[in-house]
Amino acid sequence: VTLLEKFHSGDVRALARIISIVENGAEGYREILDRLYGRAGTALRLGFTGPPGAGKSSLVNALAKQYLSTGKKVGVIAVDPTSPFTGGALLGDRVRMTEFPSDGSFYFRSMATRGASGGLSSATDNVSIVYDSFGFDVTLIETVGVGQVEIDVIDQCDTVTVILVPESGDAVQTMKAGLMEIGDVFCINKSDRPGAERIRHELRSTLGTRKTDQGAWPIPIVATVATREEGTDTLRAAIDDHISFIKASGQFESHRRAQLKKKILNILKNRFQREFIGRMTGEMDFDQLLDEIRSGSTSPFEVSDRLYRQFGMLD
Amino acid sequence: VTLLEKFHSGDVRALARIISIVENGAEGYREILDRLYGRAGTALRLGFTGPPGAGKSSLVNALAKQYLSTGKKVGVIAVDPTSPFTGGALLGDRVRMTEFPSDGSFYFRSMATRGASGGLSSATDNVSIVYDSFGFDVTLIETVGVGQVEIDVIDQCDTVTVILVPESGDAVQTMKAGLMEIGDVFCINKSDRPGAERIRHELRSTLGTRKTDQGAWPIPIVATVATREEGTDTLRAAIDDHISFIKASGQFESHRRAQLKKKILNILKNRFQREFIGRMTGEMDFDQLLDEIRSGSTSPFEVSDRLYRQFGMLD
Repeated sequence: VTLLEKFHSGDVRALARIISIVENGAEGYREILDRLYGRAGTALRLGFTGPPGAGKSSLVNALAKQYLSTGKKVGVIAVDPTSPFTGGALLGDRVRMTEFPSDGSFYFRSMATRGASGGLSSATDNVSIVYDSFGFDVTLIETVGVGQVEIDVIDQCDTVTVILVPESGDAVQTMKAGLMEIGDVFCINKSDRPGAERIRHELRSTLGTRKTDQGAWPIPIVATVATREEGTDTLRAAIDDHISFIKASGQFESHRRAQLKKKILNILKNRFQREFIGRMTGEMDFDQLLDEIRSGSTSPFEVSDRLYRQFGMLD
Repeated sequence: VTLLEKFHSGDVRALARIISIVENGAEGYREILDRLYGRAGTALRLGFTGPPGAGKSSLVNALAKQYLSTGKKVGVIAVDPTSPFTGGALLGDRVRMTEFPSDGSFYFRSMATRGASGGLSSATDNVSIVYDSFGFDVTLIETVGVGQVEIDVIDQCDTVTVILVPESGDAVQTMKAGLMEIGDVFCINKSDRPGAERIRHELRSTLGTRKTDQGAWPIPIVATVATREEGTDTLRAAIDDHISFIKASGQFESHRRAQLKKKILNILKNRFQREFIGRMTGEMDFDQLLDEIRSGSTSPFEVSDRLYRQFGMLD
């Protein structure tokens, strides 16, 4: 029995192994994905982002339970921003894993942002495809909204929930319209704390309604206390509403196609970098070129031009 | 009189305009850089990174004053991580600008991390070249150590100072050896606060000595109170020592060459993306390919293969 056969029969350990292969881009990962693509495409991809301390993990846990309780299968990807100064949250995995079923209806994976930029969004996308083809109905992706890498990850989601807390007033003021670009649904978590009403008003006046060709999406604001699972049913309903809305408007499909196109271009770019530049730089006297630049007789741009012109001369 | 002539005569407004052109990649930026490369290469590039709240700005200000007081000309680049949730620090610019000379011996620029990933490190590099060719002796680059983008920026520097505070014990524990990879010099800022001695001991036992082919660099740890300019002279001396060390060992030159090579490859990659992929995707029926992927009859990897094979068929 091959690894893929085990995977298709619902073997959780095969799932774990395939995720590792795909996440690390290990030998054979591409062939696996080639085979999985045909079985993927139905799982929803839901993104959750917000500042550190907003309670993203608790909220994603609570939502995962919601989905599980209605018979859905759920995969989670937590993106840890491995800042040299904050470290990861790997311990979190174990804690979480114990409170969820291990029968193949749930899986949790955390990923580090460390490493090649651009690589992370392709890794989360590929793992989402693995989840999807394993039969999961929903993939929940959580990430701190820090840098471009995280934004690329969030862009891949069908619906993005921005999680704030009553203390996030400054963030709302700073971002203004920018918030609306990111979030389809807003959640004020820890809403039992003082200031929850005020931030709701601020959000309300900032967000407004997103107009689309197929009607207007009134961006919902949901109050939750994730640790007590309060309001998380309402949040789930708001997310479901958004999915229905974008499916009806055609945006769901057009966004997925745009993401797919982006993915193809990324694969091409990376391959170009790996193969073409690798060969080119292997064949030429780079030291000589660097000497010329250091002496001021040419510039990196002119050198790049020269190299680029060699395009046509390769087989 | 052309903009470049004004620039070379030391006109600060010409400097400001050229920085803007280069930072934004505006029309003509490349030609400007082609001309400037011949005059650049002597300025030191010093990086400062650390967690939010470590006092990076105060420290960089204090060091800038140090360098100015010894007759050096100083350019500063502050990289603001424009997290959707933290916003920028643009107000900081104005405050700082007023306490520094405006006679062309000092310039400050803040840059946002927002935008294309990879774009930021090339922007800071290009602006450093502008500073360098304007006649600045030192470029100070400060950035929060958050993501890959910021690490790329720091990698470009000749000497990197990691700034911690007495409360950074967790960071030290989390990073361990990783800290040594990043920092050439360590600074415990706000060292008048409790815990400064403890973190110094933790750092001391973590850091050790970096062995190189040309001798060992004992990583220095300097205590400062940047707001009172205490210890900043010692920090400057430690940085100067490191520069002398790497110049003597050859690492200064080899690192600069490696960065230059990286830059050329980045320019090539971006150009490939812009021109080649642009033309390719303009000519083909992308919708058809996406349909095939969505229906499961092919994968993004196979589509990329097909596109890649068309390499040779372009003029």
